[in-house]
Amino acid sequence: MKAEIIAVGTELLTGYVVNTNGAWLAQVLMDIGIATYYQETVGDNAQRMKDTLSLASSRSDLIIMMGGLGPTRDDISKEVMADFLQTELKVDANQLSRIEDYFERGHRKVSKHDYQQAWYIEGGQALPNDVGLALGSFYETENNQIFVLLPGPPFEMKAMVTQYLIPLLQAKHAENHGQVFDSDYLNFFGIGEASLADAIDDIVMDQSNPTIAMYSKPKLVTVRLTAAAETLEEAQALNQKVQDQILDRLNPYFIGQGQDYSLAQNVVDQLKKHKQSLAVAESLTGGLIAETLTQIPGASQVIKGAFVVYQVEAKENILGIDAETITQYTVYSHELVKDMALKSLQKCVSDLAIAVSGVAGPGPDQGVEAGTVYLAIADGKGYLESKCIHIDHKPRQTVREITCLEALNLVREYYTK
Amino acid sequence: MKAEIIAVGTELLTGYVVNTNGAWLAQVLMDIGIATYYQETVGDNAQRMKDTLSLASSRSDLIIMMGGLGPTRDDISKEVMADFLQTELKVDANQLSRIEDYFERGHRKVSKHDYQQAWYIEGGQALPNDVGLALGSFYETENNQIFVLLPGPPFEMKAMVTQYLIPLLQAKHAENHGQVFDSDYLNFFGIGEASLADAIDDIVMDQSNPTIAMYSKPKLVTVRLTAAAETLEEAQALNQKVQDQILDRLNPYFIGQGQDYSLAQNVVDQLKKHKQSLAVAESLTGGLIAETLTQIPGASQVIKGAFVVYQVEAKENILGIDAETITQYTVYSHELVKDMALKSLQKCVSDLAIAVSGVAGPGPDQGVEAGTVYLAIADGKGYLESKCIHIDHKPRQTVREITCLEALNLVREYYTK
Repeated sequence: MKAEIIAVGTELLTGYVVNTNGAWLAQVLMDIGIATYYQETVGDNAQRMKDTLSLASSRSDLIIMMGGLGPTRDDISKEVMADFLQTELKVDANQLSRIEDYFERGHRKVSKHDYQQAWYIEGGQALPNDVGLALGSFYETENNQIFVLLPGPPFEMKAMVTQYLIPLLQAKHAENHGQVFDSDYLNFFGIGEASLADAIDDIVMDQSNPTIAMYSKPKLVTVRLTAAAETLEEAQALNQKVQDQILDRLNPYFIGQGQDYSLAQNVVDQLKKHKQSLAVAESLTGGLIAETLTQIPGASQVIKGAFVVYQVEAKENILGIDAETITQYTVYSHELVKDMALKSLQKCVSDLAIAVSGVAGPGPDQGVEAGTVYLAIADGKGYLESKCIHIDHKPRQTVREITCLEALNLVREYYTK
Repeated sequence: MKAEIIAVGTELLTGYVVNTNGAWLAQVLMDIGIATYYQETVGDNAQRMKDTLSLASSRSDLIIMMGGLGPTRDDISKEVMADFLQTELKVDANQLSRIEDYFERGHRKVSKHDYQQAWYIEGGQALPNDVGLALGSFYETENNQIFVLLPGPPFEMKAMVTQYLIPLLQAKHAENHGQVFDSDYLNFFGIGEASLADAIDDIVMDQSNPTIAMYSKPKLVTVRLTAAAETLEEAQALNQKVQDQILDRLNPYFIGQGQDYSLAQNVVDQLKKHKQSLAVAESLTGGLIAETLTQIPGASQVIKGAFVVYQVEAKENILGIDAETITQYTVYSHELVKDMALKSLQKCVSDLAIAVSGVAGPGPDQGVEAGTVYLAIADGKGYLESKCIHIDHKPRQTVREITCLEALNLVREYYTK
């Protein structure tokens, strides 16, 4: 099935808002074996929206339009699509009363435009919106072409896709092709994409179900396995077999499974598993390590606290680093990060601590080149290690992000080696 | 001039990487009066790329293709576009020697594919890449249609656009239409889009040069003025006049000027201007406030340090909050955030301190609803204020982001009221 994703909204087209929905949706579709061949963005303009639908319907089987379902005057996606499909819009009684309830609770009057949100495409079915007011729509033509309308706010779109669209598409696929798909994501850290590809080259060549795809981001490589079979269990078993083969060779680099599984999640999971707690002392990352960890729900159980000590004075005042350590070794040294780790460990009364200091850039500092970073990890039982890395020719924010990943990886390695 | 932006790359199409380039580029084009009518993403597939170029050339005047200029086998944008334009690729001698130098310095051998990066479209001109190896291309057809090739990595793309493409496009526009454009961005905090629109409705209605556009993000509204005139000075004067009218009415909400001007930049600027320093104590935001501030180059001069005190214990161990304060008032109280602000002020020996504590969600905590947030600000001279806000029905990360903005705004208000 060839999918095409159309994002609607002048704010997306003109760049005021970055379209993150398209990327998310393409990944979720891929998990159930549907490849996206085109993505485009159009403004809130009826003629251009219709032209785009017309082109999409000439080349794709599944056409998903996102955005423009709200109550304002420029929300015209429903009308445009109904017009294009030569059908009408129908009111969903359930949603209508949900909208009325919502306004009643807020002691506000429902306007004519608010009711629009209860419309869906006649001849199709409504896709419920559990976290917002605008209904989605699912419509299949006589030639089995599928047209879908989704809301634009990411929170609403994701809930609707996960809860309602994906199961519907899976059922359609099973009905039309007798097949279901299962996808697994295996995430690796500390091995380059090329080396990883070399290491599993024969496995990739040897088989075609599951298909194997590789993606890389700075320091992270993800391998996606997608298997097709008559039942979900069979598809899962096919993936499992190949997964075992791959992990057999690459286990030291494996950080976890799942599309959204991150190194931060790994760190939180390890700490929980070992019933231990972590303290963080950050200089150049300025809070990024703590922020990344505390994005994980439940992090509060294991992240004791963090110190952002950007200035020299702060290193002394907040952490109690000895001024002499700084004078003798400078703030870019093994000695300093080790002391930062130890001091934060003590202050937080934690089991583990990590610390970073370095030059984020753009230019060098005190003769130390941008991208030079010192990292340390300490536990309460005498274990204390540090290392120095060089992140060459990268912008300031990338240096910070890579430093954050390297620091998290110290914790991962602490528990795995 | 109608622009169309085509992002090339299977990793973008399938959603592994989010396309942030398109948004940035559309905004930069808008600044010089060029509106983007379509944006699309295609995979690294010659036929689909050619179809997309063909469609784009049927409806747009300026067609920009980004990505696929590198040295790997799937980097085919140059060949595809040359083929589409029925011309050839030419080697740029300068870039060729830059590539050779680069590999020589790294003691590596240049492969055949690396040389590709020195190609540009014959009959057009090369766009230099000052921060990478792949050259861009600028080509004008006999009918004054312009085709541009840009590299995919954001860092390289942005440098090439700012340094070379924008001046070229401005010159073309002046040559063809005798007009230049100037854009200003005015950023406001704490007023909704609708109220702001109401407040300046008559100004918007009264004139057409500059054009006035409005964009909103949670808590932030940006007004863009774009003026056209024969000279840049005249265009700037037209913008200035309308800007003065708008600020006359909305000054209390104005945080600063510029496309990328943020509340964090405002806070860093205010602190520098007043030669004061800031400390931060964060609970639910987990480091986000510190991270947002330290993204601003030069923040190290004014941000003394930050404490992430996620756990109750940490509030006591790290900040020295009295256990009794927590028992008596709980961690969600005016008393607690005030004490957090005071304690971090003392520990950092700073002039100002801000503190936040609240429930990020998803669910309630200790009977307190998700989205309930307490904020405080303190200076060293006895000023101490706190407030409680309710961020209803928002996901966890949005609650954290809004809390961060509200906390930064406490500092802005401290200096402006």
